Amino acid sequence: MKITRFSHNDAIKFGIVDETDVVVLQGDPMFAGFDTTGERLPLTDVALLAPVIPRSKVVCVGRNYRAHADEFGNDVPSEPLLFLKPNTAVVGPGDAIVRPAQSDDTQWEGELAIVIGRIAKNVSVADAMGCVFGYTVANDVTARDLQRSDGQWARAKGFDTFCPVGPAIETDLDLESGEVITRLNGVEKQRGAFRDMIFDVPTIIAYASAAFTLLPGDIILTGTPAGVGAFDAGDVVEVEIPGIGTLRNPVRDAA
Amino acid sequence: MKITRFSHNDAIKFGIVDETDVVVLQGDPMFAGFDTTGERLPLTDVALLAPVIPRSKVVCVGRNYRAHADEFGNDVPSEPLLFLKPNTAVVGPGDAIVRPAQSDDTQWEGELAIVIGRIAKNVSVADAMGCVFGYTVANDVTARDLQRSDGQWARAKGFDTFCPVGPAIETDLDLESGEVITRLNGVEKQRGAFRDMIFDVPTIIAYASAAFTLLPGDIILTGTPAGVGAFDAGDVVEVEIPGIGTLRNPVRDAA
Repeated sequence: MKITRFSHNDAIKFGIVDETDVVVLQGDPMFAGFDTTGERLPLTDVALLAPVIPRSKVVCVGRNYRAHADEFGNDVPSEPLLFLKPNTAVVGPGDAIVRPAQSDDTQWEGELAIVIGRIAKNVSVADAMGCVFGYTVANDVTARDLQRSDGQWARAKGFDTFCPVGPAIETDLDLESGEVITRLNGVEKQRGAFRDMIFDVPTIIAYASAAFTLLPGDIILTGTPAGVGAFDAGDVVEVEIPGIGTLRNPVRDAA
Repeated sequence: MKITRFSHNDAIKFGIVDETDVVVLQGDPMFAGFDTTGERLPLTDVALLAPVIPRSKVVCVGRNYRAHADEFGNDVPSEPLLFLKPNTAVVGPGDAIVRPAQSDDTQWEGELAIVIGRIAKNVSVADAMGCVFGYTVANDVTARDLQRSDGQWARAKGFDTFCPVGPAIETDLDLESGEVITRLNGVEKQRGAFRDMIFDVPTIIAYASAAFTLLPGDIILTGTPAGVGAFDAGDVVEVEIPGIGTLRNPVRDAA
């Protein structure tokens, strides 16, 4: 089931994608369940929004694909390397990624994002998948030069617009066969299979929940494969996860 | 004016401290202004809570007092060193700080916290103080061993209960003469004057707002002076800022 959040006639609603239509839900299905209003809208008539706005945390995992750790000469971590992005960085499909004036090297990082659906604290690896509401596509946009110079990554990865997510939340995704693909202006730059993650989805959830209480609507970005690089104003970045969809964002410079 | 958030007869309310009483407000003064209900309660009859729960961010500044940078052999940063704590780490006066099983070295860091009252993006140093709702006391609790081993500080500083704040928000605080004092079981461990900050309050706000949009209720922890150290289960940590009050938290081990 593919869940979207969208605006239509100035109202923000949730819906389930049914081929070329969206079946409108009575509320946010994470909290209100899947009762429908009876309304159907053509997908072409709605503007898709970020399918979730984390009320608390965007947790991210660094260096979770060996080939990406290698491309910067970093060791593979022995435990998941966690960092946080603020929820003010979240934007949706089609929203501009704004290159800040402070950076000369703003880069894409296409990633699978876990959407948490239940309060989770100290969950075991065995129970971790029970906390998952679904999955979406994310771009862990990073000011690479500031990431290096700051040391701590909060600013370099936390600028406004640096966390595009969407276009939908898929509640049933095959992690075994899944992959994430990033394209710049239509040219493939990254392709990574989820099975190549160093720490898999349940391990990440269990590890994060041993530190932070995870709340419904929190998202966890699971790391990026090799092939990151910088974009310029006017570029269009696409991150695709087959089975979820394509998250497409134009790039512009700060005014 | 000293603002508190408290529970009384199972209801959560806001109020203004008037000597030994609290004058009850109609709502959260950050959003609803300072109209009172007419009710007065003795402070001894209410349970004080964290005076603010950030809906978005707890921004923190590392190494903002020279003597604290020196105690770990770190250079003084040339720009504010920002990191984030999740809002799930926030607790209030009297709440237990829980030492996680993952760490053998959980430490106090007494700090001044800025409470943001207005949406702020790219504010100038000259305009920064206009975004301040008030100030409170914070303890930037840190698992020092994990801070070192993780490299990124999100986990080591983000465990549940690692951000005690309170007991009140003071809207009028003299930053020129102010200081923060930390005591462990009544023995003074830290004393730092705000004028010894490397980056002052307006500089920090302007710098953070150039990366993240700051929202009402976001808080910024301004760094800790020298004298950090580890506590054990059964200890009581007090952080005092004269003019605001004393934030007192017992320490226990994770169950």
